[in-house]
This record gives sequence, C-alpha cells and structure tokens, in this order.
Amino acid sequence: MIIDCHGHYTTAPSELETWRKQQLADRDDTSRPALKISDDQIRESLEKAQLKFQRERGTDLTVFSPRASAMAHHIGNATTSQHWSEVCNELIHRVCTLYPDNFIGVCQLPQSPGVAPANCIGELERCVKEFGFIGCNLNPDPSGGHWNSPPLTDRWWYPFYEKMVELDVPAMVHVSSSCNPNFHATGAHYINADTTAFMQFLTSDLFKDFPTLKFVIPHGGGAVPYHWGRYRGLAQDLKRPPLNELLLNNVFFDTCVYHLPGIELLLKVVPIDNILFASEMVGAVKGIDPETGHHFDDTKRYIDAIPGLSEKDRWKIFEGNSRRVYSRLHGRIFSATSSARSAD
Amino acid sequence: MIIDCHGHYTTAPSELETWRKQQLADRDDTSRPALKISDDQIRESLEKAQLKFQRERGTDLTVFSPRASAMAHHIGNATTSQHWSEVCNELIHRVCTLYPDNFIGVCQLPQSPGVAPANCIGELERCVKEFGFIGCNLNPDPSGGHWNSPPLTDRWWYPFYEKMVELDVPAMVHVSSSCNPNFHATGAHYINADTTAFMQFLTSDLFKDFPTLKFVIPHGGGAVPYHWGRYRGLAQDLKRPPLNELLLNNVFFDTCVYHLPGIELLLKVVPIDNILFASEMVGAVKGIDPETGHHFDDTKRYIDAIPGLSEKDRWKIFEGNSRRVYSRLHGRIFSATSSARSAD
Repeated sequence: MIIDCHGHYTTAPSELETWRKQQLADRDDTSRPALKISDDQIRESLEKAQLKFQRERGTDLTVFSPRASAMAHHIGNATTSQHWSEVCNELIHRVCTLYPDNFIGVCQLPQSPGVAPANCIGELERCVKEFGFIGCNLNPDPSGGHWNSPPLTDRWWYPFYEKMVELDVPAMVHVSSSCNPNFHATGAHYINADTTAFMQFLTSDLFKDFPTLKFVIPHGGGAVPYHWGRYRGLAQDLKRPPLNELLLNNVFFDTCVYHLPGIELLLKVVPIDNILFASEMVGAVKGIDPETGHHFDDTKRYIDAIPGLSEKDRWKIFEGNSRRVYSRLHGRIFSATSSARSAD
Repeated sequence: MIIDCHGHYTTAPSELETWRKQQLADRDDTSRPALKISDDQIRESLEKAQLKFQRERGTDLTVFSPRASAMAHHIGNATTSQHWSEVCNELIHRVCTLYPDNFIGVCQLPQSPGVAPANCIGELERCVKEFGFIGCNLNPDPSGGHWNSPPLTDRWWYPFYEKMVELDVPAMVHVSSSCNPNFHATGAHYINADTTAFMQFLTSDLFKDFPTLKFVIPHGGGAVPYHWGRYRGLAQDLKRPPLNELLLNNVFFDTCVYHLPGIELLLKVVPIDNILFASEMVGAVKGIDPETGHHFDDTKRYIDAIPGLSEKDRWKIFEGNSRRVYSRLHGRIFSATSSARSAD
C-alpha cells in the first residue's frame, strides 16, 4: 500500500473558517460553541479533492491533520488555541471515521506563545487514546515568525516529549502561518523552520535524553538535503558524531519536494530508511507544472521516475518507513479493509 | 581565469578582534581608535590560508569582504556599526592593495537595527570610489535573528538601492551572526536568510522599480534550487510571471554548496547564466570530507566533476557571470597582471 504521511484538511467546509472567525470576534467569550458541519459536507469536501487525487495518483492512505497554516498559534491565548485545536481535531476524527481506509489522524496542538508545551499533553492524549490518532504536528515557533520560544532541544519541551515517547507517537515539525512580513508562509517560513529544527537537533543531545523520540521534518527536510555536505561538515567541525549516529534514528524527511531533480537529490543523499512518502496535497502548491503537465505536488510520479530504485527501497519509502515511524499505524491498518491490499 | 565571488577575511590578525572588543567595552566613546596591523601580519594571515587554497585549488581571484559573522549589526548603534565597518573595509582595502591579483573588495555596510539603510550610502560610495570595491554585503536582518526590519522589497531600502544602481554594484544578501538561540548562524540563519530573500523577491515588483539592481544569493541560494519546483509553482499560483522573467535578470546564486549532489542539482535547475562560482573559504565548514578526502568547501572540484558541462558554460560559472554581475570587476581585472591568464 502507499501511505502519504503528510496531508492537511485544507478543503474543510467553510463553516470551519466561520467558526474560527466567530471565535476571534468573541475573544472574551471562553465558551466553546459547536461546529455544525454535516457528514455529507465532509464527504463533498474530500471526494472532489483529496480522495480524487488519492484515486488518480494511486495512493491509499493519507496521514491527515488540520490545516497547518490555519493553526495560527500566535492568535489569541492558550484557551483560544485549546478550543480551536479541539474543534479541528474532532473534525479530523470525523473524516477518519467516515473514511477509515483513506485517512488516519494526526492532531494539531493547542500551543500558545509563552505557554509551556506541557499544556498540549491533554489534547495529544485525547486524540491518540480516544480518536486513534497516530501523531501530532509540533510548531517550533508558535509566535508565527518571531521565533521567541526556546529551541526544540530546550527542556521547555521535555514534558511534552515524555508523553510522545510514552504514547509512541512521532511529531511532524510544522510551523503555521507567518505574521512576520519578512516570511512568506509556504515559501519561506515553512522551509526555514525545517532547516532550523534540523540544526537544533544537530547541535544538541536531545536524542541521548530521548532515544525513541521521533520527528518528521516535512517539505523534504527544508534546505537540509541540498546542503547535506554542509551539515556533515558542520557536525564534524563541531565535534559531533556523524549524522547517522547523531540523529538518523530519530529524524526523518518527507518527500514534499515538487520537482524531479529535488527528489533525485533527496534519495541520493539521505538514507532510504529516513525518507517517508508524502505530497501535502491539497496544499501549498496547487497548480500543474507546465513542464510536465502534472501537478507539482504529485510527488509519487517523481519517485516512480527514479531509475534503479529497488522494490525493497520503494516499499520502504511508500509504506515501510511510515509504519516504523508512525508505529501506531501498524495496528490500525491491519484492522482496516485496505490491509488486504498491503504488500507486507 | 577563475573568480571566487564569495570570500571573507575570516583569518584576519587577532588585533582586529581586540579592536572590536575594545570598541564594545567603550560603548560611550564615539572616537574611532586606529587599528594597528602590519603588512607582514596581513601577509601571514593570508599566505597560509586563502592564498594557499587559491594556489592548491587553482582559483585566481577572490571577491573579498570582511568576515560576515563578525558584522554583528545587532550590537551597539549606528555609530558602532559605522566605525566597525570602516575599520573592516579599510583592512580589506589593504589586503587588495597588497595582493591586487588575488583579491578584490566588497564592503561591509554600517547597518543598524531600526536605522534606515540610507545611512549606508556614504560607506558604499567611499569603498567603491576610493578603494575600488565592486559590491557590498547587504544584511536582510540587522537584528541578528529577530527579523524585525522591513523585507528587502520595502521602500525602506530604496534609497540605498538607488545608490547601488548608480554605482552599478551588486549586493550579496548576507546575514551575520545570530543572537536568537533558535538559529545556528551558519547552519540555519544563513540558509534561512537566503531562502527568505528569494521569496521576498518572488512576491514583489522590486525589479520593475529597479531593472538593473542585482543581488547574489549565497550558499547556493539557500533552499531555493532544491525546491525549484515549489518556487515555480508558487509563482504560478500567485499569478506572478515565470521566474526567468520575474527575477532571473537580477538574482544570482553562488556555488557554496558543499557536496557534489547539491552542485549537480544547482546546475541542473538554475540557468547557467545565474550561477557564480564561489567557495566561501575559509568559512563555515573548514574540515575535510572523509568521503572524498578533500575539503568540503573545495567547490571547484564538484563543478569540475559535472559531466557534459560545456567549455562555454564552465567559463560562465567560473568567470563570465561574475564579470557580468560585478560589472566593475571588468575594468579592474584588465588592469591587473592576472588578466594575461584570462580566457576571454
């Protein structure tokens, strides 16, 4: 089977956005109004978008989370983020319940600038234990482009990591929208955050403290594979262990790189065991590449075009690595009908 | 001849650092003490470092500027930066005077957080007109990692751009050290700034206002070539012109990418006319790659290893493009003895 480890509910019915607008308009109101969206509306929002693309591109299961750019942890306070995360995660749970073969949930976290990440433990636990979610999206910069939280390797984050380890769920390092005019969200802030997180990991002993903690760095790892020699060299100059010892048991890259030469590079320099198939469709880049006639974000085509990729490596990228990193996926897939199509 | 368009005086005699420490210790003193370094000290600092590597690697001329990480525009005020820039630029001028065949100057600018970049016009003009410098390093984030200046495309920068255009000098977009614990300087801040600047250019009409303004984005363009499909797709989704029309007459990438697969990608996706040879030696990564037995930053070897690169394209990367972008270089090289070795 083909698992896409990075999809967001970017096509949610407009009632979700209306709910959010109302929440922000009524900032002093700490109640949590109900979100009214019907099952048919959910079906309609997916059938012509993510489900259509799954069918057309031949992918099976999408690891699905709330829209990343809408998390906007910088808006409001911890209660704002708590309610907004709950509503978004519950909607993802409904998607996964309606389409158990097509989607499996990953949660948004109720992060808020200046608030210790321990406040996210409850929502993570609820989503994993009650909804069967298999991971979370962790925002390394809840300020939305001002970068005033401690680095991901600071003890500030440790209580949350303890819960991740206990539940055996990975986090995708994923920022949200940018309120800093220097950073275009999907063109700069996303990619910068990926690069930044990798370098934080490289310079710390986080994975000595948490040997089983796992992160997926999306968007192909930001700038990292392109500068793989730089990172190998920096690790060496800084007297750190080689990258494979230092972090490659804990850090993984997705394949959200929207052209063949980028995917070629990724597969050439990063060990196959660290690459997870993903497209982030429907996401940052929606158009069709005039050079190929196919969607920029149809990343499966690029991987299919890599010459000499063995069946085993192909299986790792498309399925095996995701099963290993999202270890809770394993039990879930085998209980779903799609498991009959599984290759292993 | 082979022109390395990106070198910093990272090996300057320790008296320079002592001068800076004294300056910061005497913050209220607005005088500018003399920097005492002898010609022999300068020679010694270069003979065993940059000049040795030029000879060993077979490169001829380095476009040379003060150490980027030491610019630290976030420290002190505009006067601090003015004096520090003057001292650093004068030292570069001495280097270029001692070794006119090997080095040609690019200046540091006296930027300071919150101070309009127009304050840099005087030092740019002095360096170009009096010292024969051919460009400048422009810091898109003088705050050192807090990113609280207007984007490079804001009118805030326009008076400085007018002077660049008048003098016909390009700017290399180059941040300095980071005082934000989230960003490792050479592993994250540098690369993020490159990516950020490109996306600022992509979303603006800056080059309609300044058709002859030229920027070099160093470190191989940050994450941009690796995500070339993403940027082509974002431009298309945003209803911007194709990248070649939008910015490739004005934006150029250097080759400071420290492994062969990265250089292969760069040459595959970015038009040859937009690629300028550079190594940034002696710089961010000083070690020898155990996989190759050669210095990570010996980028000439990677370009030499690209199969099927025509002589013409090779000449463009190593010489022609730098002559075009740094247009003041042209007159300078022809007056130097090294011009006898020139290929054109």
